[in-house]
Amino acid sequence: MATPTNAQQPIALVIHGGAGTITKASMTPEKEAQYQADLAKALDAGYHILESGGTSLDAVTAAVKVLEDSPLFNAGKGAVYTFDGEHELDAAIMRGDDKSAGAVAGVKTVKNPILLARAVMEHSDHVMLSGRGAEQFAKEQGLELVDNRYFDTQFRLDALNKAKAVMQKLPHQAAIRLSPKFHASWNMGTVGAVAIDRTGNLAAATSTGGMTAKRYGRIGDSPIIGAGTYADNQSCAVSATGHGEFFIRYQVAADICARVKYAGASAKDAADQVIQQQLKPIGGTGGVIVIDRLGNVSWSFNTEGMYRAKKVEGQPAVFGIYQENMR
Amino acid sequence: MATPTNAQQPIALVIHGGAGTITKASMTPEKEAQYQADLAKALDAGYHILESGGTSLDAVTAAVKVLEDSPLFNAGKGAVYTFDGEHELDAAIMRGDDKSAGAVAGVKTVKNPILLARAVMEHSDHVMLSGRGAEQFAKEQGLELVDNRYFDTQFRLDALNKAKAVMQKLPHQAAIRLSPKFHASWNMGTVGAVAIDRTGNLAAATSTGGMTAKRYGRIGDSPIIGAGTYADNQSCAVSATGHGEFFIRYQVAADICARVKYAGASAKDAADQVIQQQLKPIGGTGGVIVIDRLGNVSWSFNTEGMYRAKKVEGQPAVFGIYQENMR
Repeated sequence: MATPTNAQQPIALVIHGGAGTITKASMTPEKEAQYQADLAKALDAGYHILESGGTSLDAVTAAVKVLEDSPLFNAGKGAVYTFDGEHELDAAIMRGDDKSAGAVAGVKTVKNPILLARAVMEHSDHVMLSGRGAEQFAKEQGLELVDNRYFDTQFRLDALNKAKAVMQKLPHQAAIRLSPKFHASWNMGTVGAVAIDRTGNLAAATSTGGMTAKRYGRIGDSPIIGAGTYADNQSCAVSATGHGEFFIRYQVAADICARVKYAGASAKDAADQVIQQQLKPIGGTGGVIVIDRLGNVSWSFNTEGMYRAKKVEGQPAVFGIYQENMR
Repeated sequence: MATPTNAQQPIALVIHGGAGTITKASMTPEKEAQYQADLAKALDAGYHILESGGTSLDAVTAAVKVLEDSPLFNAGKGAVYTFDGEHELDAAIMRGDDKSAGAVAGVKTVKNPILLARAVMEHSDHVMLSGRGAEQFAKEQGLELVDNRYFDTQFRLDALNKAKAVMQKLPHQAAIRLSPKFHASWNMGTVGAVAIDRTGNLAAATSTGGMTAKRYGRIGDSPIIGAGTYADNQSCAVSATGHGEFFIRYQVAADICARVKYAGASAKDAADQVIQQQLKPIGGTGGVIVIDRLGNVSWSFNTEGMYRAKKVEGQPAVFGIYQENMR
């Protein structure tokens, strides 16, 4: 592919597959290779669209769909279990030019929640739909529906059973004001993507199964526009992963954009300010991926690891799991 | 009551009962008096708490509870109807000191959703609960539950029937990319409160029945932390009302706080920038009430009217419905 002319924005795509207590000790070379293979598949799917002149919106949709279809991540197939042994999925998508957005919360039968979030954005006059109503809309839109059991994996069922064993020792779920590590291990694998296309448009997308053993219709940060997902061509596009309650209260995605827009911070500095300086000291574990309006790509996470990959035009793809990038 | 010493923050409370197409022509002196009486009751309930040395959190809770219990407003009793002829209620509350927050979406049987939002904040490790799960939590918390019919009013049923008559002429709900006026008339009466107490703590609360004839489990801005509700002692407390989808996409409450915090805008200027300059031109109808960290009180709305009232220590209470304040 030819070098872009000055009139064209160099394209870029960043993806994540969740942040948390990912240590070398807990991994095997085989597992590492599996994660990297699926991250590469998602990165390729999205980047190919950008390279072919497609939109950042299509790129983040395609990348997140691949990660939803992978059983390794806590989104779509492989989503964590609720306390009641089901899967309730959340997703959001946003485009930076007109700030249109779509989000869904608590859907149980939609194979790819990111496609539903996009349908909400493009084919309804709402931004956020939830529960059975959202599933009804999915049906009307002709999206692929599956039985809730489609999302099952043994790995996540084991995690549920471990979580419930811990919870049974506590008087009430409300008593679990968990230590960050505890939460992080239940919470791993939210997926997301941010991209900039040739026209300079930004987009962000996030999808998750939420928190293992979640109850009471809990909604985390992923489908909350401004918390887990935000895109604004005046500043940047952000997708987050982590302990969602902190990310909602601190408006992580929108706050990073606000620091860029109003305080003149670089996207990297803004991300570090929020993730490292603001959230880390109070136990708000997690991370973000960011692309700013000029195409600068960054990430920041305050956990042992974050599954991640990026591809900037003219540069080799970069993958990472632990603190250091893999290549 | 004595003038506060320098060590004490002058107290203040602002409330709203929704923004929209409220014209003199559509009102009678009797209706005006009813609205003002219930606004006064809510203002008194909240201000009395502040005056007695209570917290801003208690003040906004009490004020919003009065407005929920009034049949005049679209929150609690008097909430609008969904497309299916039910009521689905949303609420959120946030405190500015530790930025803890609670929110609920789509609850049908909780008499005072604001009390449930507060219980989520104080007695769960989550920020946002939804649907039946949220109702289960309400039950466990011992909150007052009611039959969904408790929320019925003839006024709102008439509005549903009018809305459905319009909708039946359209091929699909998705086709209703409504003109702002159209929406505003379906959407009137979200309630909210912001307060600052003697210790300088800010709090914000918002409660709503959402949009008349809403479908598909639609969630508006009221329960979205950062969109319809936000409080941060470093900047300000905001409660919003209006066309929720715009308020989510533009992160209205958090953006006003960000402009104060990062761009050095006054709370009033920040509110006007967002409501008048950003939202009005694109049809994002609605308004906000704001108190900043120094106790400065303001409101801004781009509609014909907004039900509102404020009481700042040492000053007479101010009420308003139309563009001009009433007294």
